[in-house]
Amino acid sequence: MEFAKRMDRVTGSAIREIFSLLAKPGLISFAGGNPSPDSFPNADLARIASDILAKNGSHVLQYGGTPGIGRLKETVVGIAAKRGIKATPDEVIITSGSTQGIGLASKVLLNPGDSVLTESPTFIGAIQTFLIYEAELAGLKTDEFGVDPADLEEKIIKRRPKFVYLIPTFQNPTGRTASVERRKLAARICAKHGVPILEDDPYCDLRYSGEAVLPIKSFDESNGVIYLMSFSKIISPGLRVGAAVADAQIIRKFNIAKQGEDLHTPNLSQEIVEAYVHSGKLEAHIAEIRKSYAQKRDAMLKKLEEFPEGVAYTRPDGGLFIWAELPEGCDAQKIFAECVEKGVAFVPGTHFFPDGGHKNTMRLNFSMPSVDQIGKGMDILKEVIKKNI
Amino acid sequence: MEFAKRMDRVTGSAIREIFSLLAKPGLISFAGGNPSPDSFPNADLARIASDILAKNGSHVLQYGGTPGIGRLKETVVGIAAKRGIKATPDEVIITSGSTQGIGLASKVLLNPGDSVLTESPTFIGAIQTFLIYEAELAGLKTDEFGVDPADLEEKIIKRRPKFVYLIPTFQNPTGRTASVERRKLAARICAKHGVPILEDDPYCDLRYSGEAVLPIKSFDESNGVIYLMSFSKIISPGLRVGAAVADAQIIRKFNIAKQGEDLHTPNLSQEIVEAYVHSGKLEAHIAEIRKSYAQKRDAMLKKLEEFPEGVAYTRPDGGLFIWAELPEGCDAQKIFAECVEKGVAFVPGTHFFPDGGHKNTMRLNFSMPSVDQIGKGMDILKEVIKKNI
Repeated sequence: MEFAKRMDRVTGSAIREIFSLLAKPGLISFAGGNPSPDSFPNADLARIASDILAKNGSHVLQYGGTPGIGRLKETVVGIAAKRGIKATPDEVIITSGSTQGIGLASKVLLNPGDSVLTESPTFIGAIQTFLIYEAELAGLKTDEFGVDPADLEEKIIKRRPKFVYLIPTFQNPTGRTASVERRKLAARICAKHGVPILEDDPYCDLRYSGEAVLPIKSFDESNGVIYLMSFSKIISPGLRVGAAVADAQIIRKFNIAKQGEDLHTPNLSQEIVEAYVHSGKLEAHIAEIRKSYAQKRDAMLKKLEEFPEGVAYTRPDGGLFIWAELPEGCDAQKIFAECVEKGVAFVPGTHFFPDGGHKNTMRLNFSMPSVDQIGKGMDILKEVIKKNI
Repeated sequence: MEFAKRMDRVTGSAIREIFSLLAKPGLISFAGGNPSPDSFPNADLARIASDILAKNGSHVLQYGGTPGIGRLKETVVGIAAKRGIKATPDEVIITSGSTQGIGLASKVLLNPGDSVLTESPTFIGAIQTFLIYEAELAGLKTDEFGVDPADLEEKIIKRRPKFVYLIPTFQNPTGRTASVERRKLAARICAKHGVPILEDDPYCDLRYSGEAVLPIKSFDESNGVIYLMSFSKIISPGLRVGAAVADAQIIRKFNIAKQGEDLHTPNLSQEIVEAYVHSGKLEAHIAEIRKSYAQKRDAMLKKLEEFPEGVAYTRPDGGLFIWAELPEGCDAQKIFAECVEKGVAFVPGTHFFPDGGHKNTMRLNFSMPSVDQIGKGMDILKEVIKKNI
């Protein structure tokens, strides 16, 4: 069987191998990006789902429209407004997770060989998707304040990218949040050169410290930002509901592209999210998640203080991840193998770099394990690192 | 904004225009392909959904695996076996409707310019998807027994297609079912030339008369058939659950391609389908749907007998559609406009032909309207056709 050329550069094998190791019984995992299994409003959603199907089953179980349910689109408009983004419902499409938004943007914008700029490191799923659409990736210089504006403009001029992919808030994998100034600069530079920004913002409600920062899209006057949001981290990832907010012309193309994928996001998933957002319980639920994840973050950071000198790490104000950098020459892949042997896992950082390298880095997830597991797992990690430093 | 080249040939505007007209209050629609709104097991699914979320919410609401839930994959293996298809779970992927299967096959197989052969006419959604992947389409000579084997082999030799897309059972839009002999021949000819068949089989449980015919995949000894099935027509299209059954190597590529779309089909949708299939109620439910749709089909066929001479139509043994052909020179688009004015809609047949033309044809759906609406709508259609013949 001869597959399409677009499949050549994506094997998914390295990461698949890592995740297949996670099936080991009793393994403490800092590897995933999953919400805590005790963070879902099971009972409320059970009641909501039953109500929806009993009262409105004939409609909910029927085919739906590709753009999504009108009321949920209005809800998204409202959420966007609270984040400083002005949008109308025809500038919104409901997606099956923000992951689908990355795929749709790639599908409607990328020709083979087109350039895409990303933070470096960046979300591994996005890298895979850009590669499927045969993009040429280049990483932007990124520090604790976000992408370097001079480097951004230089690379835009040099590479004429089709778009720039950014996760400015509680970034995956670093946990870093770009400053307001950097956001404004990114918006201005991209607008000046007519380059769209694909702004991925799935974590923004998960803030545990510091002040909220508005999305890049809120600073964009050219309507050139495609903004992706998600209900995965505050309600449930298993329901697969997110949204894209962008210029109506782009959303129309997203609609056409989505018709040939899942046709529409399941109505029941959409209705559950819509009902829960308006149940009056979401705010308290988010507050609860924040409290729990803040404790977990703090537990992990506290353990990191005991790590040997030369281990640097981020101190995120929110999200799901801490990023650690070992001294040059340390091999996180080797440390990973030893750690799995001893009962703890993470993701070696090299996989998050569009250009590879950075073998001394690692991503640590703190949302999924319990505080107790974090304590035990970090002790193991510390000992293995000590041996390898 | 400069969009990708793949978006050039798909505007979706003609069909979108048709469906926007359907919002007219009181309109009787033979245009859609929807199940009857009273055909869904609302109450059972309400109870099932509530049970699943209450008992297993922490798991169901979490991220799931891209291939789908293991138990549902086993269920698909069982359903396939009843249809004469031998498969293992690693030859199955759960898709978000069989629509996604068409998209995934296109994504993993088609390079721009590749040829795809289809029945002529064929499913409009598939045409759109193949065009997004920049395929060159060619229609196969198709009669009441299926695609013409000589034409199939000739076009395979001439065009070296990447795959052949077929809906052998209760075809959309014609309602026709290919004979066993033609199925065997299609399997044999494609295997001989090493060309995969994408077999789309969403309607196969909706048989109202005649004997069941096994899928093409059951006659294929080369494992070159990608078989798409769906729960949309027997449980609910709004849940978006289907499956693809194919060689494990192909399924692995489907998995990679699906990661960049919806990541996985929502767990709740999958679990609801899985539970309902094993609830002991599905068989009786399908029997009920069959009885209701058989009555609707018969009501529509009976009305067609009163239509003016020169109007030919199919007499399908199942599915959702009847295909009508008016005398040469009649313009179904013009008749459509007049019909909508008078309160009834259908889809002009030209849209279903990969090469266009055939302006004297129309697709009539009988599952969605009530028997009463079929009577009234067909009377209007008859009068408008009489005037235009």
